[in-house]
Parts: sequence; structure tokens; C-alpha cells
Amino acid sequence: MRGTKSHAVVLLSGGVDSSTALALALRDGHVCHALTFQYGQRHSAEVEAAKRIARSMGVSDHRIVAAHLGELGGSALTDRALPVPKGRTREQIGSDIPVTYVPARNTIFLSYALSLAEVTASDYIYIGVSAVDSSGYPDCRPEYIEAFRRLAALATRRAVEERAPQIVTPFIKKSKADIIRAGVGMGVDYSLTVSCYDPDAQGLACGACDSCLLRRRAFADAGVPDPTVYQPGVKFPGR
Amino acid sequence: MRGTKSHAVVLLSGGVDSSTALALALRDGHVCHALTFQYGQRHSAEVEAAKRIARSMGVSDHRIVAAHLGELGGSALTDRALPVPKGRTREQIGSDIPVTYVPARNTIFLSYALSLAEVTASDYIYIGVSAVDSSGYPDCRPEYIEAFRRLAALATRRAVEERAPQIVTPFIKKSKADIIRAGVGMGVDYSLTVSCYDPDAQGLACGACDSCLLRRRAFADAGVPDPTVYQPGVKFPGR
Repeated sequence: MRGTKSHAVVLLSGGVDSSTALALALRDGHVCHALTFQYGQRHSAEVEAAKRIARSMGVSDHRIVAAHLGELGGSALTDRALPVPKGRTREQIGSDIPVTYVPARNTIFLSYALSLAEVTASDYIYIGVSAVDSSGYPDCRPEYIEAFRRLAALATRRAVEERAPQIVTPFIKKSKADIIRAGVGMGVDYSLTVSCYDPDAQGLACGACDSCLLRRRAFADAGVPDPTVYQPGVKFPGR
Repeated sequence: MRGTKSHAVVLLSGGVDSSTALALALRDGHVCHALTFQYGQRHSAEVEAAKRIARSMGVSDHRIVAAHLGELGGSALTDRALPVPKGRTREQIGSDIPVTYVPARNTIFLSYALSLAEVTASDYIYIGVSAVDSSGYPDCRPEYIEAFRRLAALATRRAVEERAPQIVTPFIKKSKADIIRAGVGMGVDYSLTVSCYDPDAQGLACGACDSCLLRRRAFADAGVPDPTVYQPGVKFPGR
């Protein structure tokens, strides 16, 4: 029905981890269906980044789904009345669940991925979460992913009648520096990606939110020049 | 913060089961947050029904979320090129997973409910699924719900820091006739509900899809007059 090639759904946010996951899924030989969400995030520049990345990797099936998490509220990423924390130390990042946490975001994203996997007869769902270099979100932990695997095995017609999709998390135990090194080896152009939670109107990164700080540190650790274009006047402390 | 009253999210489709679940959640004493999806379903008359029901029960927080399942495809409920099966027998209904199955629908709905439960500090999520009188959907089975419970215990900040929401399925082992009897006892006005998968432009029920047939039979079994308004000329075989 779909030929002999294997198919994979890849969650693509437009950041470093998901872009590298897409490169890996392609290298693994899958026909890839990229899935990006417009969810009311203040950093919707990442949706444009996702489009550039899918295009640059030759992925022709790229779905942008409007998921109205912003209407439910509860996060600095969707509610402009809540400020994004800036200038936190490495010790602070990951020590708590920050206000940038979006309630049940990965569960909603993975649920749509499950739906798209069924529709495209995909046996794989790639998600580039890392439990090592994360912002401390509960839905990036290995035990959470494991619970979603068990759900996916029961949730769909395809799981019941044929087989459940595998939830592939290649970076769950990797640092962001490891991910970047892997991506460079596969030719990922990180200048196309956006990580900043609070970019300006031109899409330039703030250099101070948790995501900018994690990204910048990871490029330094990987020994790879950071291609991010920061807003004018951004100063970084010495690492 | 929220006073001493308990809060509950209730998935409300506008049909018999979810309307009865809402009545039950109210009777259980919860402040209820009703959640309905506009997901590209051809029977969007049910969204209007959900609004009437929430209003009739005095529920002031009713969220209608646009979830673009139709864009992913794969179901007769969202794709008008696929006909809705009509006139199937009781033996046929439930013997397979029919084309009205929407890929991963309950997973997507429950994921949004999880998000709303976190935002509203709700300790309960009510979903009116029945494994007895269902259309044969995989995501109405008890083992599926059990897997979602385990996921919900790990997925959110609230689950990690306070407590996970309970997934309440009061009708999982009930027939639709049982549900109707319970609802009549709580004063549910079923004339406000819509079950038909394929209503006409006026919202009148076709009388022949699986959902109409299950509904009609359930009212008869419960000994309750069916208040559904059917399209002109609908004829029912003797039961």
C-alpha cells in the first residue's frame, strides 16, 4: 500500500534537538512526515525555522497544526502577561519546573503524532527530547516517555490490528553538546534553527532565556561555532 | 488559592454519554470545566448541542477548542469523501473498528483535558466512555484508559509537585441504556443532545448511522421515550 519504505513521523519544533532528530530519521532511511505546532507560543519564529529546516532536508510532507494551548493558559510561553525568566545560572536551570513549562505540551504533541502516524502508516515517531540538558520539564523524562509507549501500544486501530508505532527518543540520554556534534556530522545547518523563548520581532534571539543559555553553552561544549544571530547589545558572561 | 471546592474537567461532546458524565460530575459536587472540540467533524451540530447542555446545567466555564484532526485525515467523521456506514446490524456494530474511527481522538482529547486540569487545578477528569455499548473504538477500552492513567501520573507539573488528576470513567462498564436511566434520574434533558454522525443541515439525525442506531436502541432498552428529532421519512425496522 505504501511501498516498501518505512515511514516516520518526526516532531519538529524548529530548535536544535528536533532538527537533529529529523536528520537522524532521514539517515535511518525513513520517509519522514514532519509535524510542527502553532500553539500560541510567543516564539512563533520557531515555526518559520521549522519550515526552513524541513525544506533544507528535502522533506515534502510538513504539517503545521494549530493547537490552541494558549487558550488554556498557564505558561510564560503562551501568556505574554507572564515574563520569561532571564539570566538564570546553570544551577537554577533544571532545578525546578520553570514558568516556561507548557501544561501537558508533549502529551498533546505526541497524541497528534500518534494520529498522524496512523494516517501515514508510520511505524516510528521521533521526538528529540533530552532528559539531560532539559529545562526541567516533567514530560521530557524517560519514565514519562515509557508511559507514552505503553499508551501508544493500545490507543489506535493500527496498534490493535497491525503494530504500534515505536516512540524513538535518540537523545533522551544525550547532552545538547552531544546532539550538536551528531547533527554537525550529518550536515545539519544550525543557522536555520531557533531556540529562543523570547525573540524580538525580527526573530533575533534574546541570549538570556534558559533556552538561549542552554543552546549557547552546548555549542561551546561541542566546540562548534554558535551560528545564532542575537539581538544587538547582547553580552554574555565568561563561561 | 481556588477555595475549598474540588474542580473537575469534563469532556463534553454533546452526546448522551458525555452529557450524563457532566451531570454526574456536578452531582459529585465539583466545579466543572467543560471541554468540547471542534475537530472538523461533519457532525459539528454536536458542538452546538454541547453549548446548550453546558448552559442548561449552569456550567459557566465551557471551552471550545479547535483541534485540527480533520487536517490529518483518515476518518469518515472528518473526511466527507468517506461515506458514513448506514443501516448496520447490532452484530456488525462493534464487530470491527469502523471507518468512523478517528485516529487517536481520545488520546488527543484526554491530553487537552490534562492540560486544562493543570491550569484549573482540577483533581478530576471525567470522560463518559463506555466499553460495552461503543462503536468498537480501541480508545474506549478499559486497558487504554488504564494506560492513560499511568501517563497522567507522570505528565504534568501538578502530577509531579502535588497530585495527578484522577481519570473518572463512570460508564466504562455500563450500557447506554444504563447511562440514560442514570441521566434521567439526574434530570438530564436528552432532547438537547446530538448523537448522529451524519446530521442534515438543520442538525436532524439520520436515524441510520451506528451512533443513531445505538442511541435509539438504548432509549428503547431504558424504557425512556427517545426525544431525538429525525430527518423526515426516517423509518426504523422493528426491534
